Formats: sequence, structure tokens, C-alpha cells
Amino acid sequence: MIQKAVILSTGDEITTGKVVDTNANFLAEKLAENGIDLVSVITVGDVPERLEWAWKTAIGLSDIVISTGGIGPTADDLTTETVARLAGRKLLQDDATVEHIKRLFATINRLMPENNLKQALFPEGAEIVPNPLGTAPGFRLPVTLDGHTAQLIVLPGVPREMKPMMENTVIPWIRANRGRDTVFAVRIFQTFGISESALDEAVAGLIKPDEARVSFRASFPQISLRILVEGKPGSAERKLEELAERVRGRISDYCYAEGETSMEEVVGKLLTEKNLTLAIAESCTGGLVGHRITNIPGSSKYLLGDMVTYSNEMKMDLLGVSAATLEKFGAVSEECVREMASGARKQTGASVAVATSGVAGPDGGTPDKPVGTVCIALNADGVSESRRYQMRGTRDWVKLLASQVALDWIRRYALGLPISESATFRR
Amino acid sequence: MIQKAVILSTGDEITTGKVVDTNANFLAEKLAENGIDLVSVITVGDVPERLEWAWKTAIGLSDIVISTGGIGPTADDLTTETVARLAGRKLLQDDATVEHIKRLFATINRLMPENNLKQALFPEGAEIVPNPLGTAPGFRLPVTLDGHTAQLIVLPGVPREMKPMMENTVIPWIRANRGRDTVFAVRIFQTFGISESALDEAVAGLIKPDEARVSFRASFPQISLRILVEGKPGSAERKLEELAERVRGRISDYCYAEGETSMEEVVGKLLTEKNLTLAIAESCTGGLVGHRITNIPGSSKYLLGDMVTYSNEMKMDLLGVSAATLEKFGAVSEECVREMASGARKQTGASVAVATSGVAGPDGGTPDKPVGTVCIALNADGVSESRRYQMRGTRDWVKLLASQVALDWIRRYALGLPISESATFRR
Repeated sequence: MIQKAVILSTGDEITTGKVVDTNANFLAEKLAENGIDLVSVITVGDVPERLEWAWKTAIGLSDIVISTGGIGPTADDLTTETVARLAGRKLLQDDATVEHIKRLFATINRLMPENNLKQALFPEGAEIVPNPLGTAPGFRLPVTLDGHTAQLIVLPGVPREMKPMMENTVIPWIRANRGRDTVFAVRIFQTFGISESALDEAVAGLIKPDEARVSFRASFPQISLRILVEGKPGSAERKLEELAERVRGRISDYCYAEGETSMEEVVGKLLTEKNLTLAIAESCTGGLVGHRITNIPGSSKYLLGDMVTYSNEMKMDLLGVSAATLEKFGAVSEECVREMASGARKQTGASVAVATSGVAGPDGGTPDKPVGTVCIALNADGVSESRRYQMRGTRDWVKLLASQVALDWIRRYALGLPISESATFRR
Repeated sequence: MIQKAVILSTGDEITTGKVVDTNANFLAEKLAENGIDLVSVITVGDVPERLEWAWKTAIGLSDIVISTGGIGPTADDLTTETVARLAGRKLLQDDATVEHIKRLFATINRLMPENNLKQALFPEGAEIVPNPLGTAPGFRLPVTLDGHTAQLIVLPGVPREMKPMMENTVIPWIRANRGRDTVFAVRIFQTFGISESALDEAVAGLIKPDEARVSFRASFPQISLRILVEGKPGSAERKLEELAERVRGRISDYCYAEGETSMEEVVGKLLTEKNLTLAIAESCTGGLVGHRITNIPGSSKYLLGDMVTYSNEMKMDLLGVSAATLEKFGAVSEECVREMASGARKQTGASVAVATSGVAGPDGGTPDKPVGTVCIALNADGVSESRRYQMRGTRDWVKLLASQVALDWIRRYALGLPISESATFRR
């Protein structure tokens, strides 16, 4: 009965930091989707005694161990023999696999090098996991240590080979053997403009520990709230929906999306739905607002243009900001961004325009306009709002936060929410 | 004496596959650079008994345990308590940290929420690792279990806070306690426009295995070449300089920087040195070129403006692209980007201008202009170059690669190198 899993990532390239272990992330996500509880990810290099320690430890912790890497043709590929030794099985050659490998080499007009035969050896009794894309099939083998049995799943480390093997062979097997009729239902709320601690306070007491697991994740500039409910199919989802409804009531103003959706996606969807076109005038964000908007496929339908006016001359020439305004209030002022936003609309005929101007730092701050001073404006039919913020952090953070506020303002305008009251920050 | 390490990554966001654990990769690389043997990376979710198991296991395996995550202000942040319990120390409030947190909140005109006080609690006797950028300082504490002592280093999970803490406080401490008199000298060459295999061939045979460890890292769009020499202080650095000299001769054309320097930094430095001003005209890159240029402090000195003309009307109105050109060749054509670049210069009076136009995808491709078709142009006194590229990959990759080519063209213009012959791609 498969409930608890451990992922085993092997390879010196991971333990020396040469590659980021994206396999573990892919496997973890697949396991979570299928209601398998991932106890741990254990990574070790290609060192025999460490591999053996890792396998023993993993078996002791779980019902299923999924390993990636270490089944190539070279001498430092030790996974198969390590597993066979732990299981007390001898290695047998699988002739069908030999044929498979020979065929793969034939397609590139090469003969199979002798050392590839190693990839056709499997512990006696192992069930082979086919690898149509590569020379290293995987296998599944139940192993019992100290009276505890775990299923060992051995997969190659090459992501493009490993992923389809997981999807097509391993996951179906896991589903058929979960022997549990409970499932996990997960909901993620993406929020902006509320601090992690304030978010924590906002939902405090809403959900009892025995109802769901609640966790927070600050991935600047947004903070996500995650609710995980375990229960019978149907009832878990119903319970989750009930809890989600409670949470929505408390954070509706700050929650811009549920699920893995970005602010720019939300903005794009809203602009499309409401048939709005967008113009952008940027100073301190330097093109970031436009970059984020255009990361969304189809953004050419609503984005007309983005004028990054870094110099005062450009602000006057392109956006028609008045010399008097720049003279009297400076480029970093609510007056200036309001003129930038209205100028961008005039220039493009867009239905809504946002503008940013500020001191991104690290230099350029003054006593009355310190680094982090950012002014945002939004202009639309009958709407001209602006606000001055004091942001904190390095140049890239100020740019990112300012761009997030600008996008959030577009969202709020499209939804008819109060615009300039958004966003209290914390890092 | 610090020789063996274990990295502990904690957080449900990792064990449920919501985020890729890049912290472990960063820490693994730093440890390798400093000759520390990484025994294992252990990852567990925010579950008390699993955290405790992970810490006990890590201590048993190593001389130093470096953990990230679990020291936030919320209820699911359990690392500090877990460590204190294992060490048999009580938690004491550090008043300096309380002041630090209060100051951080004060700069954003907010009072510190009560639950942030939690981040000022440390096990008795712990040495605090300062976190200038965030509210969660880390700490170091030696712990003895079953007669074996390990140094526990607790760091936050936010990469931009964790990395400087590692570089500025933890690494120096490790160097001072390695109990080995050899040092590691490292040089990184940043290259663009040459494939990993071509780079490999270019330097093949230049360095013998016993002279240094050579490694490549493709972090799209650039590929870096890393040389690591171990030896006595002084001689290691001299040896490295000698090897670096050999390498330079082979890759000068493609190497835009040595060390952790970005293409936009190099471009900014060159524009400043040569007293050049820059204008940008973007279509498919949507503001990314401007965003990258303005990521560099002081870029306002050379960047006049960036016109992101997503619609044909804007290309005509702002940049003076002729209707005939759009009619005859389309917006994605060398003719169009050449007019965009010269228009941007006219509009701004900049000494050099670059332009981008292409099909970023996933939609919008045609048989003669498939997704990934990108045209780049550069215009300066007596210079008007353009080239059509066929790029591969997702929308964000095409945007990033196109922006990199545009920046590389500015670099090549400023250095007097051939411009449009740059960049052969491989993914």
C-alpha cells in the first residue's frame, strides 16, 4: 500500500552544484498530485557507501523510493548494483533490452559499444520500466529490510527520458497501488499588498489544524497562501471549497488569483474580457512593466505600446509632460506620473494607461525623495489616480515592486475596485 | 575541523514540488569551491518529527549542517525551535534583532506585527548571522549528539537574503575552520554566441587534468567556463592567472566578461567609458532590453529612452517606420528593424540605437516566418546593420535570447568588433 515516498537524487553533478536538481521537483509535484506524502528528498553523489546509506535510509522511511540517475553505461553508474546487493538478487541480462539498445544505435548508424550492455542488466525479479527515448530502461523491485518492505523505482537522470517513464508507467502503477481511498485537495491563493504576517493574522482561527494544513510562501513580490485538505474523494474537495470560501471572505481585496497564476496573466485576462487596450509610460521601472505584460501570449491584442522615458526630454517630447511640472515638482512626483499616464493615452489612444517614476537607487536619493520613492499613476476615461510610495530594497526589488503595483492598479481598475488604496509592503 | 557538510532544505513548497530548490544548488557550488565535501542534501517539509529526523541524521553525517528555510514569522516556521530542542538550549530574545526588525518596518511606516518577534528568538549561545536585507537573521550553533559535534548553520529560505549571508559570513567562517592550508582559486569566463560543445573544443588540450578542474555551465542565454585551481595561497592564484591567459587567447571574441558580470553591466560600462548614449526600439522583446539596461545603477546616464512599439501604428507614429515597409516586408523584417533603429535615434538623438522585432510565439508563426524568427538592427553614425535569426524555444526564451543578441551587438559596436556576425545558437 503506497502512501509515503522518498525521492533519491544521485550524481556528483548535483552535490557539486553543477546542475540544479529539477528532477526532484518534477517527481515531488507528481507525487503531490496523486496524494502521495513525500517524506524526504535525499541527494548523494556517486559514492558507493553513500549510495548504500541513502537507499537503506530511504527504504526505512517510505513505501516507495523513486531514484533518478546512476544507470548510465559508465563506471560511476552504481545504482543498479547497489539495489541488487541490498535486495540480495543477482543481475540478469534482459535480451529484449539488448535488442532495444542495439536498435537505438542502429538508428544513428552506429554499433552498440560493449559498455552499454551494462544497461541491460537488472536485478532478478525486477519489473522493467520501458524507456522508449533512451538506452537506459528503469525498473521496479520490492525490497524488504528489517521487516519493512518498500517498492524501489529506478529511473534515469535525463529529464526528457525520465518524465515520460514516470507519467506513462510509474504513476499509473502508483494509482493502482495507493490502497488508500483518501485524496489530497489543494488550493493556493496568490496575494499582493498584504504582508505575510498580516496575511497570517487575517486567516488566523479560520481553519483548525485538524481541518487542513495551511502554509504561506513569500515569493516577492507576492505572497501565496496554501490550503491542503486530506479526505475521501469528493468530500475533500467539498471541504476545501468550504474552507476556501471562508478564506476568500477575509482576503478578497488582496487575492488576485487562485492557483499558479501570475499577476500579468490576470491583468491580460481582464483586459481581454473587458475589451480594454493598454498603454504604459515607464521611468524607474525601465521597461519591466512592458516586459511582464508581453510575457503573456496574445498580449499584442491589448498592449499598444510602452514608452520608457528615462530622460526628462523624452518625458516632454513623447508624453507631453510639461516643463513647468518637471521644474516645479520634479520627474519623481505624482504630478509628473499623472501627466505621463494621460500623455501615453493621448499618444496611443489606449483605453487605460499606467505610469511609473521613482528613485530605484542605489544612488539618486535626496532627503525629501529618498531611494525607494516611487510614484504610480493610472489614467482612463474619467479616472486619473496617483500615489506616492516609499519602497525598500535593492534596485531590482524597487523595480519589481513598482511594476507589481502598476499591474495591480490595472487589475483593480478593470474590476472596479478602489485603485490607489492598494498595497502595504513588507519584505 | 570542517570537512564534510550536509545541506538541509526545508519547506512544504519543495516537498510538494511548488518550487525548485535552487538554494541547495547555490550552497553545493559554494561548498565545492571551498573544498568542502558535500555528503548529502536532505529535504523535508514543515513537519516537526521529520525536521527533527532530518537534523539528527544531518548531524550524524557531517561536520557542518547548513539549513535554509523555516525561520519566518509564521506558525509553520519550526527550524529554530527544532534546533534549540536538539541542542538542549532555551530560546532567548535578542534585543538588537528586535530593533533591527522594528527598523525595517519603520522604513515602510509600519509597526512590527507581534509574530515577527519570533524571528528575534535564538538558542542560548548561538552566534547570530546578520541578515541586512530581511527580518530573519540566521545563526550558528555547535551541537553534540551521540558524542559527535557538528556546526549547525541556520539561514533563511529567501535566496536574495540567504546568498549574501552565505558569502559574507558563513564562507569566511568555513575558510577559517577548514583546517587545511590549501586554497581554491576560481575564475569564471562568461561567453555568449558560442555553443557549449564549440567552447569545449576551443579550450580542449589547453589545461591538463592535474592543473585545474574545468567545468562548463549553460545558464541560458550565456555559457560560463569555470577554472578551479587548488594549491598553496599565492601559488594557486598565480597558476590560475597563467591558465586564464591561455584560455583568453582562444575565446576572446565570445567572452564578454570574467567573473559574475552580466552582459548589461558590460554594456553599461562600455557606454559610459565611450561616452555613448543609447536608444532602444523594441517589438518582440516587449521592454526586456530596456529592463535589463535599467537594471544597472546609473543607466540613466546613457539610456535616453526605449520605445516598445507593439502595434504597427506605434511603429509608424513613434519611430517613423514607413507604411510601405510594413506593407511590403511586414513588421518582422530586416527592413522594418533598420527603420525602427534609425527612427529611435532620430527621435532621441542617441549616438547608438538597437531594435528588435520577431515572432516570440507560441502563436503568430507563418511558413516563411515561423515562431522564433527574430530580426535585430543597430544604427549609429555611418552604421546600419541588421540580421535575421531563427531562434528556438518558448516565448520567454526567444525574448531573452533576442535581448541578449541586442545587448551583445551594442557591446560589439562599442568595442569596434564585427557586429552582425555574432551568435550561433544551441539549446
